[in-house]
This record gives sequence, structure tokens and C-alpha cells, in this order.
Amino acid sequence: MTRHTSRTESTFPPPIPAAQRWLEGVTFPPERPLINVSQAAPVEAPPEPLRRAMAGMLDDPSTHLYGPVLGLPALRERLAEHWSAHYGGRIGAESVAITAGCNQAFAATLAAICTEGDEVLLPTPWYFNNKMWLDMQGVTAVPLGTDDEMIPRPETARALIGPRTRAIVLVSPNNPCGTEYPAEVLHGFHDLAREAGLKLIVDETYKDFDSRPGAPHDLLKREGHDETLVQLYSFSKAYRLTGHRVGAVIGAPGLLAEIEKFQDTVQICAPQLGQRAALWGLENLAQWVAGERAEILDRRAAIAEGMALIEPRGWRLRGLGAFFAYLEHPFAEGASTLAPRLVREAGVMALPATMFVPEDDASGERCLRLAFANVDRATIGQLFERLAALDWPLAGDPRPA
Amino acid sequence: MTRHTSRTESTFPPPIPAAQRWLEGVTFPPERPLINVSQAAPVEAPPEPLRRAMAGMLDDPSTHLYGPVLGLPALRERLAEHWSAHYGGRIGAESVAITAGCNQAFAATLAAICTEGDEVLLPTPWYFNNKMWLDMQGVTAVPLGTDDEMIPRPETARALIGPRTRAIVLVSPNNPCGTEYPAEVLHGFHDLAREAGLKLIVDETYKDFDSRPGAPHDLLKREGHDETLVQLYSFSKAYRLTGHRVGAVIGAPGLLAEIEKFQDTVQICAPQLGQRAALWGLENLAQWVAGERAEILDRRAAIAEGMALIEPRGWRLRGLGAFFAYLEHPFAEGASTLAPRLVREAGVMALPATMFVPEDDASGERCLRLAFANVDRATIGQLFERLAALDWPLAGDPRPA
Repeated sequence: MTRHTSRTESTFPPPIPAAQRWLEGVTFPPERPLINVSQAAPVEAPPEPLRRAMAGMLDDPSTHLYGPVLGLPALRERLAEHWSAHYGGRIGAESVAITAGCNQAFAATLAAICTEGDEVLLPTPWYFNNKMWLDMQGVTAVPLGTDDEMIPRPETARALIGPRTRAIVLVSPNNPCGTEYPAEVLHGFHDLAREAGLKLIVDETYKDFDSRPGAPHDLLKREGHDETLVQLYSFSKAYRLTGHRVGAVIGAPGLLAEIEKFQDTVQICAPQLGQRAALWGLENLAQWVAGERAEILDRRAAIAEGMALIEPRGWRLRGLGAFFAYLEHPFAEGASTLAPRLVREAGVMALPATMFVPEDDASGERCLRLAFANVDRATIGQLFERLAALDWPLAGDPRPA
Repeated sequence: MTRHTSRTESTFPPPIPAAQRWLEGVTFPPERPLINVSQAAPVEAPPEPLRRAMAGMLDDPSTHLYGPVLGLPALRERLAEHWSAHYGGRIGAESVAITAGCNQAFAATLAAICTEGDEVLLPTPWYFNNKMWLDMQGVTAVPLGTDDEMIPRPETARALIGPRTRAIVLVSPNNPCGTEYPAEVLHGFHDLAREAGLKLIVDETYKDFDSRPGAPHDLLKREGHDETLVQLYSFSKAYRLTGHRVGAVIGAPGLLAEIEKFQDTVQICAPQLGQRAALWGLENLAQWVAGERAEILDRRAAIAEGMALIEPRGWRLRGLGAFFAYLEHPFAEGASTLAPRLVREAGVMALPATMFVPEDDASGERCLRLAFANVDRATIGQLFERLAALDWPLAGDPRPA
């Protein structure tokens, strides 16, 4: 008799809480505080006008009650308008579903498309929660390799499509690599998915911090795009609403009717205050978000500049964008043990790429992911100084690791 | 080739939104407004002191940020204390997980216990979202019949246990029937589940409105109870926090480690404001909840009294408690079409029992569920007058239905 394995036992424990345990028992001297580049989440409250508006929303009884399963009509309407303007398409409220965060948007979408034994193409490195959900659903995540620029290619994907393949998932700008996928790559994947009868799921959580002006692709201008395309979004990053859990799925109304079943059963409705805050943000914070984007792009530039300090020591920048830098390190030691050692010995907390690749992918031990959104220019400077000062044995170095 | 069926396609559309569509195009004259007894959710805001406290919580940046996957430590601690005192056991914070509502508590727990092809015993009538989640997970809901008092019996359950059975789910006080399961029934199910190596999942969402003083069972006093017992809870009803999505699982720490994977992947964390509000409620609203309970018990009494008006016309009270009354109607027409007709012709919105039983269970067409928590004594009086006035053809009546 084979051992019984529950849905959750089919997957691994969440990496972020595991990484947070590296901090236990470690003290950081005042002159060298911890530089935490492990998580992309904002660490500051929403802007003061939004907080004030939220306090006022608590006076409305409906903020405390259940709302429609697929979200507040006004928020769905307003996001549809924003989406249409940004992507140059025409999307109505009926194409928008509001979820309790973008992780849930992914879970609900995949539940609406797949069942046990199906396959989904997931570029590596991947966002670990995507892999965890597929594992939990009995769906096989088929690793889709990326090229030297950390970009997946449609021609590589084509060979991986089989009779049980249901979808291709892309995250652009990418987590964990930061890479902004070129429009022609997204168009190529849409062509491929349409031709093969698959869904193309594009997680655009970081769209507000894309370095390119305008729309990142023209997919919404295509006739019948939503037969193939499903977009995912999060309000957490743009308005600093992580703790309020608001995200969205943008897709065909028929798909959203399926997603409604999942949402009703798992969530009933996304939190009402978060939904109202997201609506307020869409209506009032465009300029504020533009300022946030400029700041993130400046930090991104600081990372690119800082590389000059460590490239001579063998470090290599593999990906950069959104909130992330993906770095190849030069050391003999693998990233999975090097990362907790970085915490203890350098006061730097970054995630090892082993958290983002399949177990048999050796590249995981060679790379680290830095989430730089929460560290300012000065701190980024210190970060590179600390990395440059590491005199650990290098890969290929005759000294024992 | 068999048709592909996704996880969500394996189940039916959510009944509540479907029922809400019965209201479309129907107008209710001012002298006879709609009496809506379709949903158990509170329709008023939380008490003013809690709303004021919540506004203050928005000044704390951490209210807007991610928190621990399994919930705020202070809330887990405080609920454990409350639970220990109420049930006379000893539960620590490590036995409590906070979820985004009790539906999610159920979903996460079942994902941690079951996989495709497993079976779970679910008393009928059942809570439809429980059935929907099992369908979506590829888990078979094995209907466990209830007796004439709407109570499931361990001896009936025993015969339904097979090699793939993983759990027995009880909801007490019950939704949809209102029935408060006697302690000895719960003890008998715990004995049976322990003996058979199953989990006993008891959803105690309505525990704060139980008519019986003290603990509804002694299970937490049993040695090793959490090897078998898992309890589910919701803060939505006690503190009117439905829109803020806060619930809980009380169970073995090993099980919660599995639930942590589901929560991390689907939710990241329960909404932070709701968690803080629940904590404030536990610390400050015991007396207020006692008053709410007294009001609900008075409404319950009004239902019992009102039956005198319609029992002569063939109506029968099958279950009563928590927020619910379960009524057998006397009409020739089945409940599934009778319920929307009640909206149009009597201005009464109640759910047909067809929403709570398997398709092949004929009892569904004979019964209606009334959720009376939101209607006061005077309205309950009008409700019974409207029901008494219905001169529709009776079952067994020679007039055509």
C-alpha cells in the first residue's frame, strides 16, 4: 500500500517563514544593522491620505459586511477602466474578479483551469508559491528553462506541450529575477498558447514598477484575446496594502464564473476595507505611484552601479527589475547554506535561488535573489561593500570550502 | 476521450448569488417590505467601541503589512485562553491557526488531511460550501443521514467508513438546521473517529449563540484529543466582522504546520485589521456578545411561538437553533421553485433545502431554511402571518399544483 499523501503533504513548507528563522539568536551591532533584502513586501504604511480615507470608510456599515463574491462592482469597473487605458484594450467590469491577494488570484485561476494530472509550463526560476499550489492540486509544474537573459522562449516551450498541458504561466516583470519580458516574447507566447488551445496566464503584479513607458505588450488589442489570456494583479505593492489582501484576475467572464465558485468556497469575498482602499488608490494615487516608481527605478540604478564593486570579485548580475536583482555569486559554497551564513557573518538577508528552482536544477546553488525595494541608496551602497568584503573560498579555489 | 473537468467545474455554482438573482425585477410595496431570511450574515456594523478601536489600529503601520502566516501571535494566544476556559481544556497558541474566515479554515483543514479519491462523511443536510470544497478537491462527500431530530448518529456513520475515509465533519450548532448536537453525540463521534483513525472536524462557528450554558462537549478534557479533534471557528458572527474575514482552526500543531502551507500559498496571511479587531473583541466584548446571544435566543423563541400559527396548516419545525430554523412546508410544489415564488408572492426570501442535500435526496424539496438572526420579533410575527396566508395547493391536495 502506498503511503497516503494529503494535498498539502504533496508540497514543501513555505520558504519565507523558514528563512525568517535564520534570524533567531543572531544579534546585529548598531553600527552594522541587518540589511534585509529577502522579501519584496512594503515595510511602510500606505500614504497618509489613503490611511485617512480608510478610517472614514469604517463609518460605512457595508465596509464590515459581506460583499459580492467577485468583488465590489465599483472596484471592478474602475480597474477595468484603468486596465483599458494602460493596455490600450477594451475591458469591462465583467472581465475583472477581485481576490484576497494575487496568490489567491493564481490559486483560483488554476483551480478553474486544471485538475489532477494536468500539466502547466512554469519558467524557472519560478515564484515558489506558484509551484506549491500546483503541487497541492496534483498538477505537474513542467519547468520551462530561461535563456542567459533569464527570459523564457516560446520555441523552447513548444517542445514541452503535451496532451495534458493546460496553461503557460509567466510573471512579468519577473519574481524572482526582475526581468521585464519584451513585448515580442509575450506576443509569441500568446500565439503559441492560442494555437495549442492553452491559457496564457500573465502575473503582472509588478506592472506599476516596469521601467518601460507605456504598455508592456499589445495583447489586449488582439481580437478574442481573453479566450487565451488571463492576467493577474495585486494592489499590495502599488498602494502598500499587503496586510489588507487585495488582488485581481482579468480574464474572460466565463472563466470568472468558474473562479466565483472557488472564491465563494474559500474566501466568500475579498476583505471589504482593502477593496475600498484599492478603489480609492485607483482614483487618487496615480501621481503618488508614479513617484514610488521613480524611487524604485533609482534604487534599481543603484544596484546596477553597485555591481561595479563586486563584479571584479566574480559576482554577476543575471536579472534586474521590478523589486528584484538576481545575482550569481562566486563562492564555492552553495547558496542554500551561504544565505544563512550571509545573515550571521555579513548582516545581509537574501534568499538562495534554491527556493526558486526544481531540486535537480544546480543553478539554484549559484544564485541569490535580492529584493531591494525597501533599501535606500545609502543602504544599497553598504550592501555592496559588505558583499565585496567577503573573503570566502571561491568556486574553483583550491582552499577548502 | 473523457471530457476534461477542472477543479471548479467538478462542483456547482454558489447558491447564495443564485438566490439573490430572484430579487431582480421584483418590487416590494412599502407596506409589505421584503423579509429576508436567506442569509445568516449580520447586516449591521460592529459595535461602535470596536469600530472606534479599529480606526485607531490604522495608525499602526503593522496593520497594513504582512503578518505571520498562521496569524498574529497575540490573537492565537488569546483565542487559546478563551478556548481553554470555555471548553475546560488546556490549549496553547501553538494549537491555533488564524484564517481568512471559517470557509477557509475548512478548505485548509481538508487540504491538509485529504487528497483525490478520499472520502469524508458529511451529515445531510450539509453546508453547501463544505460540499463544494470536497467536490473541488476530488474528495467524495459521503452523505451521512440525520434522524428525525436532524441529528447524525455515530452508529449510522460506522457503516459508512471505508478504507479511503479520512474524516467526519460536524457543524454544531448546525447550519442549515440550527440543531445543537448533544454532548453525548459529539463524544460518540470522537470515540468512533479515534477508533477508526479518522479526524473529527467540528465547525463551531455558532458556538456563541448556543442556547445551552457552558461547554457543548467535554472533548478538550480528553487525553490526546487533538490526535482526532479539529475545531473550526469564525469571528464573523460574534463581532459582526464578516467583511473583514477572520476565522480559526484549533487543532494539533503538526496539522497546523500542514495548514501553514495552504495559507501561505492561497492567502499569505489573514487580513491584519480583522485579526486585530478579533483580538479586541475577545478582550472587550464578552458582555456585548452575551447581550447579542440573549437577543438571538429571544428571536429563536419567537420562531418556536410563531409555529403555532402555521402548524395547523401543515408546516412542521424540523430544527431550531443558532441563527436557523429548518421548516417542512405543506405544499404540493417543491421547495426549489416554491422559494423564488415566496419572494414574488409573499415578499419572503428563504433558501430551499435542495441547496443543502444531495441531488437524489427528495427531502430537499420538502423543506426551507430560515435564517432569522436579522429579523426582530415584530418581523418574525409578520413572517408567520405571511406564511399562514399562503393558500397554495397542498401536497396530496387534488387541486393541480
